[in-house]
Amino acid sequence: MDVWSDLMLPEFLGTAMLLLLGGGVVANVILPKNKGFDSGWIVISFGWGLAVFAGVFVAFKSGAHINPAVTFGIWASGAEEFAPGIPVTAANGFYYVTAQMAGAAVGALLVFLAYKKHFDEDADPATKLGVFSTGPEIRSYGWNFVTEVIGTFVLVFVVLSFGNWPGDMGPLAVALLVVGIGLSLGGPTGYAINPARDLGPRIAHFLLPIKGKGSSDWGYSWVPVLGPITGGVIAGLFAGAIY
Amino acid sequence: MDVWSDLMLPEFLGTAMLLLLGGGVVANVILPKNKGFDSGWIVISFGWGLAVFAGVFVAFKSGAHINPAVTFGIWASGAEEFAPGIPVTAANGFYYVTAQMAGAAVGALLVFLAYKKHFDEDADPATKLGVFSTGPEIRSYGWNFVTEVIGTFVLVFVVLSFGNWPGDMGPLAVALLVVGIGLSLGGPTGYAINPARDLGPRIAHFLLPIKGKGSSDWGYSWVPVLGPITGGVIAGLFAGAIY
Amino acid sequence: MDVWSDLMLPEFLGTAMLLLLGGGVVANVILPKNKGFDSGWIVISFGWGLAVFAGVFVAFKSGAHINPAVTFGIWASGAEEFAPGIPVTAANGFYYVTAQMAGAAVGALLVFLAYKKHFDEDADPATKLGVFSTGPEIRSYGWNFVTEVIGTFVLVFVVLSFGNWPGDMGPLAVALLVVGIGLSLGGPTGYAINPARDLGPRIAHFLLPIKGKGSSDWGYSWVPVLGPITGGVIAGLFAGAIY
Amino acid sequence: MDVWSDLMLPEFLGTAMLLLLGGGVVANVILPKNKGFDSGWIVISFGWGLAVFAGVFVAFKSGAHINPAVTFGIWASGAEEFAPGIPVTAANGFYYVTAQMAGAAVGALLVFLAYKKHFDEDADPATKLGVFSTGPEIRSYGWNFVTEVIGTFVLVFVVLSFGNWPGDMGPLAVALLVVGIGLSLGGPTGYAINPARDLGPRIAHFLLPIKGKGSSDWGYSWVPVLGPITGGVIAGLFAGAIY
Repeated sequence: MDVWSDLMLPEFLGTAMLLLLGGGVVANVILPKNKGFDSGWIVISFGWGLAVFAGVFVAFKSGAHINPAVTFGIWASGAEEFAPGIPVTAANGFYYVTAQMAGAAVGALLVFLAYKKHFDEDADPATKLGVFSTGPEIRSYGWNFVTEVIGTFVLVFVVLSFGNWPGDMGPLAVALLVVGIGLSLGGPTGYAINPARDLGPRIAHFLLPIKGKGSSDWGYSWVPVLGPITGGVIAGLFAGAIY
Repeated sequence: MDVWSDLMLPEFLGTAMLLLLGGGVVANVILPKNKGFDSGWIVISFGWGLAVFAGVFVAFKSGAHINPAVTFGIWASGAEEFAPGIPVTAANGFYYVTAQMAGAAVGALLVFLAYKKHFDEDADPATKLGVFSTGPEIRSYGWNFVTEVIGTFVLVFVVLSFGNWPGDMGPLAVALLVVGIGLSLGGPTGYAINPARDLGPRIAHFLLPIKGKGSSDWGYSWVPVLGPITGGVIAGLFAGAIY
Repeated sequence: MDVWSDLMLPEFLGTAMLLLLGGGVVANVILPKNKGFDSGWIVISFGWGLAVFAGVFVAFKSGAHINPAVTFGIWASGAEEFAPGIPVTAANGFYYVTAQMAGAAVGALLVFLAYKKHFDEDADPATKLGVFSTGPEIRSYGWNFVTEVIGTFVLVFVVLSFGNWPGDMGPLAVALLVVGIGLSLGGPTGYAINPARDLGPRIAHFLLPIKGKGSSDWGYSWVPVLGPITGGVIAGLFAGAIY
Repeated sequence: MDVWSDLMLPEFLGTAMLLLLGGGVVANVILPKNKGFDSGWIVISFGWGLAVFAGVFVAFKSGAHINPAVTFGIWASGAEEFAPGIPVTAANGFYYVTAQMAGAAVGALLVFLAYKKHFDEDADPATKLGVFSTGPEIRSYGWNFVTEVIGTFVLVFVVLSFGNWPGDMGPLAVALLVVGIGLSLGGPTGYAINPARDLGPRIAHFLLPIKGKGSSDWGYSWVPVLGPITGGVIAGLFAGAIY
């Protein structure tokens, strides 16, 4: 197993693809003058689900975690491998998360480039941040945390349940699952359910020269990191106990 | 066959997953201040369909009924097993329905937690009940019953028709079927088509300390229980006769 | 081959299922007070596509034509069988079309029952007819005919192209194709693309005691019959020539 | 390998199908008096994705490029064949692109016929052009080019990543990918991501006797040609280097 080509590069590219398409659909729906402006939650949810679809194909070689909550969940489940040929070790876990974070930031940068002229338009600073990172509709760190724990539990537990079915629908299964989580549990917090998806782009937002940008809302930033990790670990422990 | 690990636990978990995602999508669309607020019927229908998708993976081991109407329908069809290795007996039927009811109530509880701050907002009591249980647009117990019978007949009869195709698309097939039933037959009553989906959460609504909640509408509660059972039994008898 | 159990019953049931779900989604979207009222073209298109999905599973045994244009198209393609074990003969063609027409009328009757209280509401007579049969947005028999020919050509030609791919995604393929035709070619005439889908329910509309119903618009009725047959035959001849 | 029947005819027919359904969905959404009028971005994105779905089945024999950017991308990746049995040569590349361009123009002509009465209605000349070819929401040739490069990179790179997964979901995979690109990256320019999709119909627009038509906007026409080719080539080079 080569750490770079079998683990870090696929995770990096897959997470970049995830954020390019995931951040992209948010940009299309909320930034002014886009063809998809104000096209609603069905567009957001399918956009993120199909972002996962593309990202999983790209990252297939490394098991396509593209999400630290999945990496933590697999570790918590007691599995011996993160993916075929990649043993569960602290070092490998570190490589996964590092590659995911970097990929997410780069994906967000590509969204910025693809939508550059629309970022140059006047819009609320919170809207511009919303293309990068999640934020709650009703700010309440405790309950926002609960929502992220539940959403990520669903993601990781159902992914670990895919093995119950003897067939294999591959990347489509997780894509549809993520569409479903968005439709059903995305209302309060915008469903980060993935620490890299939220923190990587938040760093990109902090660094990039975005016209009229405001705060990167660091006060909220721990919720979409610790909530998903907690949800993923609970799902892993639970799946490890019953499967 | 172990009743707990092969039957009750999978049914319980699968039905809880069904209600968490199914109730969740309703909460997202109808409770105030959600990101998916007022996003319409396409969101509701895909949300419930993908809730089934996730629930079926979780409950695969027990045949993934996650619906007493399916359990009754299989019994009525004359099949010898509820799922591979689980014989059709009154006791097993009882275990199925008990686990489904409990799972549905727990799933509704999790929706309450995920959307807690949105339940604390002011909203019509009927809206808050709508996250848990179905209600008709035009109240007419007889015709509402007919609508539920027809919708559940479609569900159970087409599920029993899946075997006509030599292939197997697994949980996706029933998920898409449920999307279709929602789009096409959900208009008048909100398509319970599943007694556990309606009664379990109605009990949860009755018990939970929901701010500003009103009646649990017990007067209507028998329709989404007896309608689906009737539809499922008719479908089972009919499929048993022709297949 | 038994004409009744291998051909007519599956076609009858599959076409009834098609119309129950297809007519149902129109009822949900256009009849007053429905939960899906005014939910738009995405709901209509997915509703009809998933109606085909369910209908194809039910009618799998007879090759799942559930549409005279497909039956005519297969005949025109020069194939020797309508389905495995069912030879192409004039008599069998007649059985197919008869079963399809009867099934479509019965499916429309079930829509009437499922939506009975909503048909009792006040609505434009043309709206009530719209649940049963198609009508053009701009009445021009010649161009409406052209639109139906093109839409049905796509349906039958692509169905006959499915064999190009060595895999088999079964009922999902035709369901997605019909979603696509609705989205892309349904604008002018409402895409009958199936003589049974239009004529069977029109007869049901003519016969049923629908409150406040108006004309069954027989003046237009030939367009969604002859247009689809023409399109299906052209597709069959063309596919027969190149495949 | 017969150039006509194994390469040019399938590419021609597949690209014509792509444009018939792709142009069709735009016509349905933006031309006056259509049943799908103003039905939004979800309809556009699924319409184009399912247009690809149909086109890929039709063009399966030639590898279903139906897009010069794919042809260029495969060439850049260093592959030896454009499709099984079709070697990568300059001549074959020329045949692909020629057939794609001709097919796209013919597909656009069929859209014109299917929507003839709606083209006869009064509408902004830019709207009528929009059924044929793409145009940017904010005109900025440089950034519009960047957006098209990124969108086409995603298309070609993910298509070349499909081989990572040992399974095969065939035409569905690319269809869903194109839905995703539309949802996520279509906002600024309308995602040509295919030179034939844009230039062929632009020529048709220039030639056809469309009532009240205006300019064919040749000033912009190079962007959706060179952008996609550039994106496809970068994707091919990159995939060739890492896979």
